[in-house]
Amino acid sequence: MDNTFAIVEPKKFKSSQSLSLESGKILEGVSIAYETYGELNPKKDNAILLCHALSGDAHAAGYHHKDSTKPGWWDTMVGPGKAIDSSKYFIICSNVIGGCMGSSGPSSINPKDGQHYALNFPVVTIGDMVKAQKLLLDHLGVPRLLSVIGGSIGGMQTLEWSIRYPDFVFSAVPLASAQRHSALAIAFNEVARQAIMADPNWRKGNYYNNEKPGLGLAVARMIGHITYLSDDSLRNKFGRRLQDKKDFSFNFDADFQVESYLRYQGSKFVDRFDANSFLYITKAADYFDLKTQHCAEGQPLSSFAKAKAKFLVVSFTSDWLYPTYQSRALVKAMKKNNLDVSFCEIKAQCGHDAFLLPNPQLSSLISGFLDRMKKEFQLGHAF
Amino acid sequence: MDNTFAIVEPKKFKSSQSLSLESGKILEGVSIAYETYGELNPKKDNAILLCHALSGDAHAAGYHHKDSTKPGWWDTMVGPGKAIDSSKYFIICSNVIGGCMGSSGPSSINPKDGQHYALNFPVVTIGDMVKAQKLLLDHLGVPRLLSVIGGSIGGMQTLEWSIRYPDFVFSAVPLASAQRHSALAIAFNEVARQAIMADPNWRKGNYYNNEKPGLGLAVARMIGHITYLSDDSLRNKFGRRLQDKKDFSFNFDADFQVESYLRYQGSKFVDRFDANSFLYITKAADYFDLKTQHCAEGQPLSSFAKAKAKFLVVSFTSDWLYPTYQSRALVKAMKKNNLDVSFCEIKAQCGHDAFLLPNPQLSSLISGFLDRMKKEFQLGHAF
Repeated sequence: MDNTFAIVEPKKFKSSQSLSLESGKILEGVSIAYETYGELNPKKDNAILLCHALSGDAHAAGYHHKDSTKPGWWDTMVGPGKAIDSSKYFIICSNVIGGCMGSSGPSSINPKDGQHYALNFPVVTIGDMVKAQKLLLDHLGVPRLLSVIGGSIGGMQTLEWSIRYPDFVFSAVPLASAQRHSALAIAFNEVARQAIMADPNWRKGNYYNNEKPGLGLAVARMIGHITYLSDDSLRNKFGRRLQDKKDFSFNFDADFQVESYLRYQGSKFVDRFDANSFLYITKAADYFDLKTQHCAEGQPLSSFAKAKAKFLVVSFTSDWLYPTYQSRALVKAMKKNNLDVSFCEIKAQCGHDAFLLPNPQLSSLISGFLDRMKKEFQLGHAF
Repeated sequence: MDNTFAIVEPKKFKSSQSLSLESGKILEGVSIAYETYGELNPKKDNAILLCHALSGDAHAAGYHHKDSTKPGWWDTMVGPGKAIDSSKYFIICSNVIGGCMGSSGPSSINPKDGQHYALNFPVVTIGDMVKAQKLLLDHLGVPRLLSVIGGSIGGMQTLEWSIRYPDFVFSAVPLASAQRHSALAIAFNEVARQAIMADPNWRKGNYYNNEKPGLGLAVARMIGHITYLSDDSLRNKFGRRLQDKKDFSFNFDADFQVESYLRYQGSKFVDRFDANSFLYITKAADYFDLKTQHCAEGQPLSSFAKAKAKFLVVSFTSDWLYPTYQSRALVKAMKKNNLDVSFCEIKAQCGHDAFLLPNPQLSSLISGFLDRMKKEFQLGHAF
């Protein structure tokens, strides 16, 4: 395959500023891995920030090498002529802090002692991730975002952006997201964390010079993976079909295709992801709660009182981890604050993962929304 | 507490017959732990068999000691004057083979070598469990069952009974059950098994003389536990309330009550359950498929062609592990075979666990159904 037309270069920004975290701690020398697609126009009014979910990274689109067969995680959506069109927009995607794909996180080296941070890396929040992204945008000379777009935990970041930096965000697109995790979502994250921490190779996070807690991380990933799918999609994809056999094994090998698939997903994830980052990012997501985070003391709760962005909120019918009722609650809170909101529940069979998969309806919704935002942004534009 | 009125004695039956298993293997010297409540009447037409679910046992009702505070797992339903009334019926409950509560299973001693079976115990099926129960009933001199009742994997056993021994079963009550596991249910079971097998203390099943794989089993239990609950019940029970603290810990301790609860459920389970039995029983449930197991070769699939029992099928609105559509499929298959079926979907908030919890509607459904069965059984009774 020749991907030269879509080769993107991974970039890194190291901030000279320290970052005050919600925990009260300070993170010095934040590094942020990022990629950009398209060009910032002279008026600097075409910037779009993409926010990734738990297992994503800065590599949203294109290829890193001309021989690569694996494009970025949202390549179906992002690129020249695509819904998020890099021939029109300047698109930025960065790895969250706490992550393991180039930005500062538990696997980074602590400048204080030259060792991997491990659990000495401070626990970060969705707000902290967004503050780090702001440092990057300032560095890139982006004065204001036309839009910030993300699904799942990336959707939490878009919501956080709209409230933390109301004058910086012209529009926001939270997909398959929520104001806060339900007890069910926290429960699944906690069991996944317990699976990692139960692995003796985890060693309270200090495994970087030893074998990694691969078995625990694989189980954590399998748990997550099931919650991203749906009863229907699993039935259609696997049903009760057996894996390379005509009858049951009558032992504890994988008999069913769905078992083999999960084992494969688990082990593949271990090769590319850091177990401690799994702990940090899921914890940040569990902590996220727009309602409690953005209220002046003694004020009635009104998450979006400060927000100015125009919103496109999207949910998916078969998503039981971030069900539609949570998106509706978002829309209600936005409307209560007289915000410009469009909402769509897309019929999709593939559960929470739907936001990542090719979907013509989602593509046209987003591209239409961005077209409108571009026009309105230019009209009302006062920089 | 004085429980002398409800003291029950755990009993054990050791069969002199060998058991031919569906895998083709033979199990010698099957032991079955069981309890009985009430008395078999002279006509021997008042026997009811209860079938337990994954983590249940033979102790369905009453107390083992007068100072005990923990009654059997279905004490709200079973006892004198209760829905399954031990003053009217002779009620039997036995531990499944493959289990760890007194019946033959992987933790039993293999008579061939005096060692714990571990994974040398043959993989058993729901059909094998039912065949072992039949040995017990023959031993007890029960000529026919007025009813067989069970929820979840216990419901699979009731279905199996109705088809494997059609002349022995006058009625059957599968609760929160299914003809077969969905890919989603298999997926959750498989991840739970992987959590156990990932624990280095599991040692391919040979841990009986060493430390047990407690951390892996705890994670397995937590996964299961979440699937037995519902989004609603978790929200009502825990929401996002914090555990004994006013603010987040900003570490990986349990912050939310739901996290503490799951950790507690996991560790409590380890004290009473054998990890290998978890593997065996979940595998039996995953293998279960009425459609493929009871068809003569080349015959059209018709699970209930041989069944004669009258059925009461019950599902629960918030059960997403064994959803109502699966019970409806059962009812459809039964009706297609002109069977006498009553069906009820009970409105309940607590998910799959609903069948185990006190529920006046469920109690009155079952007691009414049993009253009718008793009358019809006596009328048509020809022994």
